[in-house]
Amino acid sequence: MRDAYIVGAGQSKYGAFPDESYRSLFATAFEEALGSAGGVEAADIDEAVVGSLGVGGRQLGLSGPAVTEHVGLHGVPCSRIENACAASGYAVRQAVQAVKSGMADVALAGGYEVMTDTSGDVAKYWLGVSGETEWERLTGTTFAGVYAQIASAYLDAYDASPDHFSKVAVKNHANGAKNPKAHLGFECSLDDARSAPVVADPLNLYHCCPTSDGAAAVLVASEGVANACDDAVRVAGVGAASERVGLFQRDSYTAVESSERAAAAAYEMAGLGPDDVDFAEVHDCFAIAELLAYEDLGFCERGHAPELVDSGATELGGDLPVNPSGGLKSKGHPIGATGAGQVVEAFKQLTGRAGDRQVAGASVGLTHNVGGSGGAAVVHVLEGGAL
Amino acid sequence: MRDAYIVGAGQSKYGAFPDESYRSLFATAFEEALGSAGGVEAADIDEAVVGSLGVGGRQLGLSGPAVTEHVGLHGVPCSRIENACAASGYAVRQAVQAVKSGMADVALAGGYEVMTDTSGDVAKYWLGVSGETEWERLTGTTFAGVYAQIASAYLDAYDASPDHFSKVAVKNHANGAKNPKAHLGFECSLDDARSAPVVADPLNLYHCCPTSDGAAAVLVASEGVANACDDAVRVAGVGAASERVGLFQRDSYTAVESSERAAAAAYEMAGLGPDDVDFAEVHDCFAIAELLAYEDLGFCERGHAPELVDSGATELGGDLPVNPSGGLKSKGHPIGATGAGQVVEAFKQLTGRAGDRQVAGASVGLTHNVGGSGGAAVVHVLEGGAL
Repeated sequence: MRDAYIVGAGQSKYGAFPDESYRSLFATAFEEALGSAGGVEAADIDEAVVGSLGVGGRQLGLSGPAVTEHVGLHGVPCSRIENACAASGYAVRQAVQAVKSGMADVALAGGYEVMTDTSGDVAKYWLGVSGETEWERLTGTTFAGVYAQIASAYLDAYDASPDHFSKVAVKNHANGAKNPKAHLGFECSLDDARSAPVVADPLNLYHCCPTSDGAAAVLVASEGVANACDDAVRVAGVGAASERVGLFQRDSYTAVESSERAAAAAYEMAGLGPDDVDFAEVHDCFAIAELLAYEDLGFCERGHAPELVDSGATELGGDLPVNPSGGLKSKGHPIGATGAGQVVEAFKQLTGRAGDRQVAGASVGLTHNVGGSGGAAVVHVLEGGAL
Repeated sequence: MRDAYIVGAGQSKYGAFPDESYRSLFATAFEEALGSAGGVEAADIDEAVVGSLGVGGRQLGLSGPAVTEHVGLHGVPCSRIENACAASGYAVRQAVQAVKSGMADVALAGGYEVMTDTSGDVAKYWLGVSGETEWERLTGTTFAGVYAQIASAYLDAYDASPDHFSKVAVKNHANGAKNPKAHLGFECSLDDARSAPVVADPLNLYHCCPTSDGAAAVLVASEGVANACDDAVRVAGVGAASERVGLFQRDSYTAVESSERAAAAAYEMAGLGPDDVDFAEVHDCFAIAELLAYEDLGFCERGHAPELVDSGATELGGDLPVNPSGGLKSKGHPIGATGAGQVVEAFKQLTGRAGDRQVAGASVGLTHNVGGSGGAAVVHVLEGGAL
């Protein structure tokens, strides 16, 4: 099995850009990715795979080829992958398979979403399409409502309070304030995060990520190509798994089985474990999801995520910074871009390009991308300084 | 690079099943695929990738995990791939990459679509989403209208008449009448095909494929697994390419560049050429598309497809039978299932399981799957008796 490397990565600013098209956002991300690589040109790209949910329905068919043609990759095979909010995390994994298979030496993986040019009702509909449509969504459950059920179950099962959700928000906003690409790049106080209006009890507005537009792109390459690039981050491990799409069908509300399985597979391939991870970008669409991620990824035992939050270990400067980019909460969550965007941050961290939010001495990073409420999950373990 | 083999394949009946769900149709295809393999069990499946466009919007997010959970593949990584009508052709290619990469020993590829439970206007909208939405569809062009422009350009450029379209329809209906899974499994006469009502001049109803529901599934495996199966068809070559999504952006209306590129790549990987092909399943969403395919795939020179039709060579019993299954025209076109369904037919032909429509002595088959009006294309060259 050939090794695969991330040799370039870029993203558009995340935010509210209702006048931008998915094509122009993707082009911005692609150009930054290509520019960051050195040693790779557009003509070297053998394959592309891009993620999006297609919010608003603006180009539901063939939007993959539509974005690659727009950036000048004429003729290159491109497909769109959809796994809800895990779409482009899976796109990166697919690009890794393309390189490992020997069918590509350079594969482009990315994602994009334009979400802010729809009305509130339309946005609510689209945010809901990743729930189990027939038996969950049609009973009226919203996406925030699903995570509120998870949060309630967690508060009931463990020694946790809504303040732990607020502390996650404060941490991620503090990080995002150092990220010029962040959608909500401002700090918030614990009082702000405590006192925000309720969205779906027990989750308030600061416990929920924003609706964002944006795009992200990464270049995955073989060792031969990576040797010619400025920097290369080795894809040491990658794992993915599915879980029942409808929450009501699951054995547990307080563990995400797909995340556990994906992490186990990624650690096994990498020959590394949670103790080896220097920082992680985890899927904090709602603050409760970050707490579950700590446990699903093995950063702490079941039910101990609140302690980990209280300890400050996951803050920038702590033992295991989580979401140095600001996470979905502050950096933003343009659905199809999110998973690839996590890899963009990991690439920047592992090549010393993360500016004010640089994690000192980072050599192993983990990205964790979840589709819907856990129907799909994908984890990458990435290693800097490998070449 | 490891070899990949098709070891099992199955499909639901194609037709109008508005009361079926995409899950139940996929389950039927999956069970036939698994049953056809021998030597592979559901628990052996490491990975799944499924294609659909999501017509009607019934489960736009996470329908991949939703179908795999429904057939009992709990936890297996699954993603949905979308490249319009080429979705599951790309799914098969992705499964091939998964096996070749060493990350999977058995990968499931398939697709599904439920199209007949929507109103005419909704169906027309969804059929159009694979056109260039902003600059082509919003001017009012229908999907049939796009192919009518192609057909008009072809009639203008070459010595061809609408009768050549009708002859393709007659041939494909004759084949489909021998296929118990076909949607329109009846014969039609040349007079029927000549005299049908116009849909988009110069295309009439018999020059257009039906709107179908259905699902298809194939199992792709490593050599080690294939050796334990009843039969195995080697994936000798696979090629894919993109083309500008909007017709108006292209250099030519009478050649599909993505098909040409995909075929060239597949032939190169296989070390085979068009003369080695014993039969082909080509993407005849409209009869003109089958004529273009003959030329794009190298079965004849540019402009000579009408001669090839007149010669009878592409009929069952001819030198190069095309669409022995009945093709999209007679077998049907459940969008997301079509590409995998072509591989199902090729597997049956190459393992001597095609019944009354068996191509005698078939040892090399080709499948050709197109997204939209050519924005994406994928070609597989498959070899029987390889193990």
